[in-house]
Amino acid sequence: MPTLSVFMDVPLAHKLEGSLLKTYKQDDYPNKIFLAYRVCMTNEGHPWVSLVVQKTRLQISQDPSLNYEYLPTMGLKSFIQASLALLFGKHSQAIVENRVGGVHTVGDSGAFQLGIQFLRAWHKDARIVYIISSQKELHGLVFQDMGFTVYEYSVWDPKKLCMDPDILLNVVEIPHGCVLVMGNIIDCKLTPSGWAKLMSMIKSKQIFPFFDIPCQGLYTSDLEEDTRILQYFVSQGFEFFCSQSLSKNFGIYDEGVGILVVVAVNNQQLLCVLSQLEGLAQALWLNPPNTGARIITSILCNPALLGEWKQSLKEVVENIMLTKEKVKEKLRLLGTPGSWGHITEQSGTHGYLGLNSQQVEYLVRKKHIYIPKNGQINFSCINANNINYITEGINEAVLLTESSEMCLPKEKKTLIGIKL
Amino acid sequence: MPTLSVFMDVPLAHKLEGSLLKTYKQDDYPNKIFLAYRVCMTNEGHPWVSLVVQKTRLQISQDPSLNYEYLPTMGLKSFIQASLALLFGKHSQAIVENRVGGVHTVGDSGAFQLGIQFLRAWHKDARIVYIISSQKELHGLVFQDMGFTVYEYSVWDPKKLCMDPDILLNVVEIPHGCVLVMGNIIDCKLTPSGWAKLMSMIKSKQIFPFFDIPCQGLYTSDLEEDTRILQYFVSQGFEFFCSQSLSKNFGIYDEGVGILVVVAVNNQQLLCVLSQLEGLAQALWLNPPNTGARIITSILCNPALLGEWKQSLKEVVENIMLTKEKVKEKLRLLGTPGSWGHITEQSGTHGYLGLNSQQVEYLVRKKHIYIPKNGQINFSCINANNINYITEGINEAVLLTESSEMCLPKEKKTLIGIKL
Repeated sequence: MPTLSVFMDVPLAHKLEGSLLKTYKQDDYPNKIFLAYRVCMTNEGHPWVSLVVQKTRLQISQDPSLNYEYLPTMGLKSFIQASLALLFGKHSQAIVENRVGGVHTVGDSGAFQLGIQFLRAWHKDARIVYIISSQKELHGLVFQDMGFTVYEYSVWDPKKLCMDPDILLNVVEIPHGCVLVMGNIIDCKLTPSGWAKLMSMIKSKQIFPFFDIPCQGLYTSDLEEDTRILQYFVSQGFEFFCSQSLSKNFGIYDEGVGILVVVAVNNQQLLCVLSQLEGLAQALWLNPPNTGARIITSILCNPALLGEWKQSLKEVVENIMLTKEKVKEKLRLLGTPGSWGHITEQSGTHGYLGLNSQQVEYLVRKKHIYIPKNGQINFSCINANNINYITEGINEAVLLTESSEMCLPKEKKTLIGIKL
Repeated sequence: MPTLSVFMDVPLAHKLEGSLLKTYKQDDYPNKIFLAYRVCMTNEGHPWVSLVVQKTRLQISQDPSLNYEYLPTMGLKSFIQASLALLFGKHSQAIVENRVGGVHTVGDSGAFQLGIQFLRAWHKDARIVYIISSQKELHGLVFQDMGFTVYEYSVWDPKKLCMDPDILLNVVEIPHGCVLVMGNIIDCKLTPSGWAKLMSMIKSKQIFPFFDIPCQGLYTSDLEEDTRILQYFVSQGFEFFCSQSLSKNFGIYDEGVGILVVVAVNNQQLLCVLSQLEGLAQALWLNPPNTGARIITSILCNPALLGEWKQSLKEVVENIMLTKEKVKEKLRLLGTPGSWGHITEQSGTHGYLGLNSQQVEYLVRKKHIYIPKNGQINFSCINANNINYITEGINEAVLLTESSEMCLPKEKKTLIGIKL
């Protein structure tokens, strides 16, 4: 028996910050609440699944004509086509011109991994990345591991308690040739001149946009509205990458249903990029998983099922909005100091509570309500069973910490250019 | 509209050699036959799926209690446990000692990607890899891309028409500290002293073994027998990696059901290695796909279903053996020159026909029977519909090319140390 291990120099890895969930799980307090789940939750506290997904899953498993062969490296063709049509609209000029394509990836993390590998190999001038702070932990670290210098930015103004279009416009004051990772900026409410300024700065500085669309339809329930930003960029002839995930808006979390979307100036360039991506995906996983993609394709390609899915999105979004209204109303009735209108002014499952770091700490430590440091929570985690406890907790946190600090987190002096 | 593309310097990628299938698909000849599918085929020419898989898939899709949340980065725990018990045996000393673990990966390509990334980061002395030639194209290139120098080897002796244990023993005459990728060497029929020599050379040279077990149960239908090599290495206290794929032996090809197995000298070292692998998997895909793993776990953990699965493996292996017998018998009846006993002496779906490169070329060009250059075919692609055409083709190829070359491929002068 050898006594020296080949692995003797391998240390235990430091865990990522994502240990809020771990701390929550280890907490014995009976009324503990976790408000930072990545996925949309039902009123009963389970991960939401569109009903039509369950039905389609059953239909598929009963279909003897299906085969379960390896997918090609690029993935399920019909899935990519249907998803791109969903993202850009069926009559998108870029689709008609054959300059939009995609690689079916293992979820959005796979899409980022693939896109970042490509940028490292083929876009060598870009070595600086600006990433929206909510994506810092997941995707920012992958950029960093591959040698990029990563800065995070946030368009949330904790003083004014809103998404500030001016902050977004300041973000593009970043150096020439960077990669700019953008999430949904629907709540920024840019004016037409704001849009024009944003576009022209990105263009003149040759900034490469890398969009992140993790849950189309779960912001406003209007599928087109939720990807309006992409239409703007396509119409202006931009080339870009986009990570499109279909996990959260269908409720297929465990199947890696992502696409790395590529928009190029013409079909020839597109084919070159896709061919290089194919080589990278071949080494990464060779064949992406099929089940989730197969379910989604069946739904997107069948008008009746598509209608059911859209209806389910609508119900979810209405439910989240109702929850937000209730939170606001309860805080009003409790007489909690401050204005809480920003809660209902934000779209989507995740939004800022507008608490400062002391208040967040108070909720975590004293009330066992687990909230990330930046105060951005998943509103679908709030339901009839816990809303009173949560709003009373917020009220207590605000009353007991209010005097010591106004709503600006202490440690954040500037909003852009914070290096990871 | 910008006229210069960001991607203007990106060329079209060169395709990998795997274009035999492409040539086959483009061939208009009505009787064309492809004998190089990666998966086990049924007599009807479809990818084989164990019947119990279909049944279990249906059961799972009808179970309302299941949730479809993201899996943890390390994957489905019960899947890993059940698969490791399958690989090493339930009462394996290494499992009892808690020094065996695994990461659920996106298929075997994902397992190799993860393992190679780890070796690059943490086993820096090993920069040379010897890989069995059948895995060269898939996994050898990934090693190469990550900076390893890759040599291929084969244990098949095309002169003697058998797996030669001496070649295997020569393979370990490789430099100190290499990585040695080994497939199933069951057909090598090593003697006890051969085993002892192999082990002692690998140990004294500090060679790191990386096993590839792509289809346990599809060699001999005896699950234990098929991984005997692992038991030898475990019993001798070796540390190693193993890519375990459960795609082919269950017939779940499209779901990425792989595991990177780690065997360490003790639990402490194991946990360090797994923690580093978790960090790497987080960046690669964050959450592995669930469906395939869930189906397999249900089968492995239910004695009745397990029995059905084992029975289905038995039928497949018997069927392949029968096909091999028929091929041999038909060649005998045709009076084809040469001895064809090697066909039935090899285990598993894939085996060498024992043809030289001229004969292979003849079959591809003249008969439209698509065979890889090394003459290794998938015997499950031969069925009642095509066996006569194939054996008559082989007969013709041997008769018309026999005189010009004996059974040694021209271009292969040495069997080991061929650099990629």
